[in-house]
Amino acid sequence: MNSYGTLFRISTFGESHGPAIGVIIDGCPAGLTIDESFIQSELNRRKPGQSKITTQRKEDDTFKILSGVFEGQSTGTPIAIVIENQDQRSKDYSHIQNTFRPSHADYTYEAKYGVRDYRGGGRSSARETAARVAAGAVAKLLLKKVGVEINAYVSQVGELKAPAYTSLDLSKSENNIVRCPDAATAEKMIALIDQIRLERDTIGGVVTCVIQNTPVGLGEPVFDKVHAELGKAMLSINAVKGFEYGSGFEGVTLRGSQHNDEFVNEAGKIRTKTNHSGGVQGGISNGEDIYFNVAFKPVATIMQDQSTVDKDGNEAVVSGKGRHDPCVVPRAVPIVEAMAALVLADFYLRAMTSKL
Amino acid sequence: MNSYGTLFRISTFGESHGPAIGVIIDGCPAGLTIDESFIQSELNRRKPGQSKITTQRKEDDTFKILSGVFEGQSTGTPIAIVIENQDQRSKDYSHIQNTFRPSHADYTYEAKYGVRDYRGGGRSSARETAARVAAGAVAKLLLKKVGVEINAYVSQVGELKAPAYTSLDLSKSENNIVRCPDAATAEKMIALIDQIRLERDTIGGVVTCVIQNTPVGLGEPVFDKVHAELGKAMLSINAVKGFEYGSGFEGVTLRGSQHNDEFVNEAGKIRTKTNHSGGVQGGISNGEDIYFNVAFKPVATIMQDQSTVDKDGNEAVVSGKGRHDPCVVPRAVPIVEAMAALVLADFYLRAMTSKL
Amino acid sequence: MNSYGTLFRISTFGESHGPAIGVIIDGCPAGLTIDESFIQSELNRRKPGQSKITTQRKEDDTFKILSGVFEGQSTGTPIAIVIENQDQRSKDYSHIQNTFRPSHADYTYEAKYGVRDYRGGGRSSARETAARVAAGAVAKLLLKKVGVEINAYVSQVGELKAPAYTSLDLSKSENNIVRCPDAATAEKMIALIDQIRLERDTIGGVVTCVIQNTPVGLGEPVFDKVHAELGKAMLSINAVKGFEYGSGFEGVTLRGSQHNDEFVNEAGKIRTKTNHSGGVQGGISNGEDIYFNVAFKPVATIMQDQSTVDKDGNEAVVSGKGRHDPCVVPRAVPIVEAMAALVLADFYLRAMTSKL
Amino acid sequence: MNSYGTLFRISTFGESHGPAIGVIIDGCPAGLTIDESFIQSELNRRKPGQSKITTQRKEDDTFKILSGVFEGQSTGTPIAIVIENQDQRSKDYSHIQNTFRPSHADYTYEAKYGVRDYRGGGRSSARETAARVAAGAVAKLLLKKVGVEINAYVSQVGELKAPAYTSLDLSKSENNIVRCPDAATAEKMIALIDQIRLERDTIGGVVTCVIQNTPVGLGEPVFDKVHAELGKAMLSINAVKGFEYGSGFEGVTLRGSQHNDEFVNEAGKIRTKTNHSGGVQGGISNGEDIYFNVAFKPVATIMQDQSTVDKDGNEAVVSGKGRHDPCVVPRAVPIVEAMAALVLADFYLRAMTSKL
Repeated sequence: MNSYGTLFRISTFGESHGPAIGVIIDGCPAGLTIDESFIQSELNRRKPGQSKITTQRKEDDTFKILSGVFEGQSTGTPIAIVIENQDQRSKDYSHIQNTFRPSHADYTYEAKYGVRDYRGGGRSSARETAARVAAGAVAKLLLKKVGVEINAYVSQVGELKAPAYTSLDLSKSENNIVRCPDAATAEKMIALIDQIRLERDTIGGVVTCVIQNTPVGLGEPVFDKVHAELGKAMLSINAVKGFEYGSGFEGVTLRGSQHNDEFVNEAGKIRTKTNHSGGVQGGISNGEDIYFNVAFKPVATIMQDQSTVDKDGNEAVVSGKGRHDPCVVPRAVPIVEAMAALVLADFYLRAMTSKL
Repeated sequence: MNSYGTLFRISTFGESHGPAIGVIIDGCPAGLTIDESFIQSELNRRKPGQSKITTQRKEDDTFKILSGVFEGQSTGTPIAIVIENQDQRSKDYSHIQNTFRPSHADYTYEAKYGVRDYRGGGRSSARETAARVAAGAVAKLLLKKVGVEINAYVSQVGELKAPAYTSLDLSKSENNIVRCPDAATAEKMIALIDQIRLERDTIGGVVTCVIQNTPVGLGEPVFDKVHAELGKAMLSINAVKGFEYGSGFEGVTLRGSQHNDEFVNEAGKIRTKTNHSGGVQGGISNGEDIYFNVAFKPVATIMQDQSTVDKDGNEAVVSGKGRHDPCVVPRAVPIVEAMAALVLADFYLRAMTSKL
Repeated sequence: MNSYGTLFRISTFGESHGPAIGVIIDGCPAGLTIDESFIQSELNRRKPGQSKITTQRKEDDTFKILSGVFEGQSTGTPIAIVIENQDQRSKDYSHIQNTFRPSHADYTYEAKYGVRDYRGGGRSSARETAARVAAGAVAKLLLKKVGVEINAYVSQVGELKAPAYTSLDLSKSENNIVRCPDAATAEKMIALIDQIRLERDTIGGVVTCVIQNTPVGLGEPVFDKVHAELGKAMLSINAVKGFEYGSGFEGVTLRGSQHNDEFVNEAGKIRTKTNHSGGVQGGISNGEDIYFNVAFKPVATIMQDQSTVDKDGNEAVVSGKGRHDPCVVPRAVPIVEAMAALVLADFYLRAMTSKL
Repeated sequence: MNSYGTLFRISTFGESHGPAIGVIIDGCPAGLTIDESFIQSELNRRKPGQSKITTQRKEDDTFKILSGVFEGQSTGTPIAIVIENQDQRSKDYSHIQNTFRPSHADYTYEAKYGVRDYRGGGRSSARETAARVAAGAVAKLLLKKVGVEINAYVSQVGELKAPAYTSLDLSKSENNIVRCPDAATAEKMIALIDQIRLERDTIGGVVTCVIQNTPVGLGEPVFDKVHAELGKAMLSINAVKGFEYGSGFEGVTLRGSQHNDEFVNEAGKIRTKTNHSGGVQGGISNGEDIYFNVAFKPVATIMQDQSTVDKDGNEAVVSGKGRHDPCVVPRAVPIVEAMAALVLADFYLRAMTSKL
């Protein structure tokens, strides 16, 4: 289905080249001030055409709230947000009406549904994430009232890696077009992406996200663990291939005696000395930073000829047309934050009924 | 909540030292032959006390079906399975009644619920996964009818890694106690775990899982992508820190021109030449192998003194008592398979309504 | 929440005097021909201003499909339908900004949410049902492919009752403005409603619905019985006070020997001689007609002064302004059908996974 | 599916003649004192063999809590309750292995699932309601902490009706075996049921339920209205044919000017003068009494020969064997209360997130 969340629940709709995309947010508590300019600023961080290292496609991504907000406040009824599609060049896609682009969703949609809106990838287009960003902005507004802060940034492009987040000033992510808070690494990343773009190729990367000031006690044990939901949320973003939190894949090489986070009493507050747990123990937040990495594959659309087959199984050749991103991670940063915000807002509401 | 799945849906219950644990499977189609000896054999693969490198705790893990099966067949009504707890040494846990073990769920449960069954970790104990394995065995029986095969194995312990799955004979995983199909690597892994055990420490590892013969068209686009649900399912297992599928984290260093999987017509069937996609495109299975890695941290319980605090924030020292695993991955193999089976069985049923 | 259904699932949004109302249909199988003129004709049956016995408010209720349909066919992705609001006279409602209308939702919304869009009743307005009718039309298109027919009609207005449905020609419901297929009763009903309208008062009524050609085996035992879901669906419509199916409340006076429906073999098909069961046994359809009655209270808005209180608890007087229905049942007929179609379409999909 | 509720959620399992029936309660907040003797007393009110007007079948209905309760308190984890089946006379049912009892679920289960546990009706047996009563007792314990009181009673048997609830002392329902608080009517009801029993027949009845001291603001607008969920919950009980609340079916004959409930300020509290609304406005509780009627058909099993068909469509004759109730309503009283408690407990938790 096209819904996400239990109590703070979103349902998205829309195809890349249809009239509009959008989202219904159901379960947002009444009484939240809905700052529309903040929603727009979040959409602007995601929108195409921001810089030389993103697609040159132009979309305004201006949104309209159709319901659920009255005199600037949420009313407890569903908040419907619609973003009209613009600058569609559907003709750019007539070549894939009957041909399957490699590593795209063309073949699987065709097989699953027997019919597909091939224009711009239809529903499988990353354009769908604009709806998530709009909803995530509302979730962020809710979380801000509780003090939760969410910051994502580009920590890797190809082989180029930024230092660990604990040594970075996360407020600097927006200082450059690649959204890496480490200026030196950022410069290299931009150069690499630009070079890849000129080679008519694409490259992958990693987005790291840090959630701070989370209340203790969010998350449900067993299946809906905080990190399990974060994992699903991130893996549901187009092009994502991996998720790790806390010590992650590197943690497997450690001994328990190295990995365990000892508890300490810090001025009356129970804290941990280290944070290999990534802020989550037993699936439940412990108040420390929740941090995780999200791996994005290289964008599938490349400006080169590729062998493939058509619907009838005949050999064919396709090449990317239109305007595409050489590397998805800079624009993925606000999407990762949005999904993280949706997960946390949901757990925040769910935690309200944990005990009498 | 303690439920997982949409149409093939399980709900688990039970604490480590309560009278029993169990699971209700709701949504299993009628007419499936329920092979009880298969369920038992799956439980046996997970149970403690199997070998020198697992905990020496003895539990029979014999199960009883209370409903939903009549004359050996599923009837379409809920299948309730109960496993009584045995060999409980609750006294082993009195020392943690008021003290928080590092990197366990003691503190977060206490903070979230204000009350907790501390004996054996209560609900946060890995004992809960026996219920998953029982339910997963039923899911496997369903998938077998469709031809889907699921094989997991230990691919890494500490720094020791097995070769890529494509070069392995997956049927050999059960040939050794560490469940690594590569005999040479297995031997080293066993030696390492044994040494770690003698050091009263623990170590992490990676389980790799391969799903073969999946029908094309399983999975839901947008949020409930095949790999997103697999990711959540795996991350919901105790001690898991990371999930990657297909090219995973390494894929971020590739170019699109290297990473894309070209389509070919193989004797009338549409296949891909390579499989960086890991059998999933746009969230939907494409018929190729679905493969993924699951990272497990070192077990938190170590037989050494560790600093911590008690409920009142006073400094305290805890040491592992009882009988624990020095490395969780050998016993995690059937759990990973069970969760994979639950995900796939659910998608198999969900796909039935995709098109007219 | 604002969603209904398990596999064929709708989520509605919108306030009476906001920019638009609408619905997302998630789970409609791909490959269904979406006849937009049929959707419009269903909306026209519900819209205000149809006749002298309905409100004179004018709303076109023209809709726009934003997604999920490509070249006239459903694609399996969410179908979003939006209906813009027109002819809003929000000023008609300024008198209730701080005053609670008797038997309306003003007080309870205020108490629950602390804020409300009072204009036209906001989300509690029956205008919301237009979204249900649009979605129900899509459900009807799906059911038509299976042969299921749904016909509702007005069977009672005040004390005036039509004969039992088995003696009526249900195709005649649209022959008169009150939607009662019995011409003689219809004439009296129209006269009664017209008189009530002149008295600036309102009156209640009953809608009867008959579902024919239902496949055997729809419905889930225990909680999601066919009639339990129909009951919830009907009771969720504004102004509904009661639901009964089959023998209903009158059936309580019968003996088991009178009430039981004997099975007979009718040309190789298992049928029942009588149908006190109302087409449902053990919560599951048995292929006979499903029929039920839905009781609607008199519309709460009357053109008379009524005593009430304001937000501060001060005594106040309110009188209906604007344009309202003297009796809701004629316009409720397509709403009842729409909700019945949504319930049946959902069960139709759910039944696909009942057995191997 | 076999689950009910959103946040306070139950999943039941079990067949009449299997090893056991039971329920998992998921979402019960931690810190609730679980009074096991209260749960048992509720089960005793439902159990067979209570009096001469109920079935003489003997079942102890003793339960066992397997999880979720520690030292007498709920822990926030799933509460699993199991009731073993006893006194099964499965041989009493061999005659219906291949024959469909009139107005039972035999035929529809067979058609839906292709296989059924025919013994005692299997899952379609009213025995399943014992699980609901056990779970409902826990819900009642939660509601008691908030002050909500739920009282059901038999208000009609056949044509015999008790006076309106407002003139009755609801605490007297348990004073007689038919559970009607009006002694004179109770006496007549008992005589009637006893006579029906001697005639080897059965008869229907009505249970009325009154919920008092409900907080204002429970219930969700649109689909999950308080009365819509109550309606579904009641209609999901075996043998129920109708549901009405507040003015119900009789309300349709009233004028709006008679039916509307005027608001008054009663010592600083907003109340309504009359209560045709039945305590619910716009789907949300307004603090007045919630009251409703539930119609039960005559029990389908009668001790008389009835014509029917077998699986192959051949004519056959069946007669009730075993021990059955001549009238279901006395034992239905605690079931109605249990379902009402489950609905209210769920809405109580859901309301916690309505506003900031």
